[in-house]
Amino acid sequence: MNGAAGGAAEPGELTLAGLRQRLVEFAAARRWEPYHTPKNLAAALSVEAGELLEIFQWLTPEQAAAVMSDPERAHRVRDEVADVLAYLVQFCTVVGVDPLEALAAKIERNEHRFPAPGAASDVNPDVG
Amino acid sequence: MNGAAGGAAEPGELTLAGLRQRLVEFAAARRWEPYHTPKNLAAALSVEAGELLEIFQWLTPEQAAAVMSDPERAHRVRDEVADVLAYLVQFCTVVGVDPLEALAAKIERNEHRFPAPGAASDVNPDVG
Amino acid sequence: MNGAAGGAAEPGELTLAGLRQRLVEFAAARRWEPYHTPKNLAAALSVEAGELLEIFQWLTPEQAAAVMSDPERAHRVRDEVADVLAYLVQFCTVVGVDPLEALAAKIERNEHRFPAPGAASDVNPDVG
Amino acid sequence: MNGAAGGAAEPGELTLAGLRQRLVEFAAARRWEPYHTPKNLAAALSVEAGELLEIFQWLTPEQAAAVMSDPERAHRVRDEVADVLAYLVQFCTVVGVDPLEALAAKIERNEHRFPAPGAASDVNPDVG
Repeated sequence: MNGAAGGAAEPGELTLAGLRQRLVEFAAARRWEPYHTPKNLAAALSVEAGELLEIFQWLTPEQAAAVMSDPERAHRVRDEVADVLAYLVQFCTVVGVDPLEALAAKIERNEHRFPAPGAASDVNPDVG
Repeated sequence: MNGAAGGAAEPGELTLAGLRQRLVEFAAARRWEPYHTPKNLAAALSVEAGELLEIFQWLTPEQAAAVMSDPERAHRVRDEVADVLAYLVQFCTVVGVDPLEALAAKIERNEHRFPAPGAASDVNPDVG
Repeated sequence: MNGAAGGAAEPGELTLAGLRQRLVEFAAARRWEPYHTPKNLAAALSVEAGELLEIFQWLTPEQAAAVMSDPERAHRVRDEVADVLAYLVQFCTVVGVDPLEALAAKIERNEHRFPAPGAASDVNPDVG
Repeated sequence: MNGAAGGAAEPGELTLAGLRQRLVEFAAARRWEPYHTPKNLAAALSVEAGELLEIFQWLTPEQAAAVMSDPERAHRVRDEVADVLAYLVQFCTVVGVDPLEALAAKIERNEHRFPAPGAASDVNPDVG
């Protein structure tokens, strides 16, 4: 799956494929692969998404909109975003899915499912 | 935030920055932006991560390892991966976080926190 | 653990202990116990909690407050509440925890942690 | 909703209705009710269910089965069970749902949906 998560990257350029490679090496150096089963990684992804949500759970809409102007909250947001993305990429690596291709295919399906000048309903469907 | 999620991309190349742009246009064309608050998107991300986990919840380790050899399950996995990534990217867009930079910074912190030839413990920390 | 989840109940009375017994018999009659490991049930509980949250994810505060006046949403709410409680009770059964005792102990700890005339902060701690 | 979550309880007896009352008083004494909207409580419930799952995410089936023999893990399990139950009860209070009635109704529906001597399939449906 060389380059599968972002095409051929320039050296030093920040790409999903490059980060995926660093995560693979990070886990291998620490012999963590046995823990990285699809089921465990899906659980860990869900746990981390919950930790991101936790930052917002008691915030008013106004406080939530200003979350990044609070340095401590901003740090937590970046940290949880990184954890969610890390586990998503690691999950995709072990099951052999290219997350960028999966998302591109889903956007195309949704462009047919939800024709463009559609009015917003009160329930927003998957991938808006 | 030009190019913030993956550097300058070639036209037609599949990058996180390119998909982010398509998601922004998709939501704008349907006037879904008012729903896309940080709190709502964090909730939606968590819900979708739960749907990915749901595929695995009753599977044995062997069944989970072979998840992609079942076409129906493989489709659901790709679909939920796409939803998680879509909401993560949309969340990052509204709070102004670059997910690739956040992950790169986290990997660097973890390389110090968990020095490389460390023995695997039975609790695997964040970002393995 | 006779009566562990709610004391001695009158016949026909609706108690957590009585429902727990029905769940035990339900799973046994269908030979589902092998699937009901602590890890699987914790995952299922988390998945169902996500499905409850899904009902609310795009709702405004006003719509969320009126959720039970929409019959279809009201049915979904009751259904997801039942699923969350079912998996919580089943989880507690397999690990041997009495959920009512656990909650009573936690309330007592919190009465010390958060002395009563405390001002509400903008982050609401566990069990409020 | 007097006694709604478990019938008339003896003084001192541990019932869901009694604990619900203590949670109502706890939140009122700290003026936390404004935070306790249905949407916030559904989010908090999901977050706490994730924290329960976190205990298990990297455990082998054998380690997970023995979770309560590790005192530190056993304490965390009881603590997270309490949090999940607390938020579930608080959610039910604000939306006016009796969790015991909801669960009883669901068990009855499932007894029809999954007739008793049914073989276990590899996907265990809601409320097993």
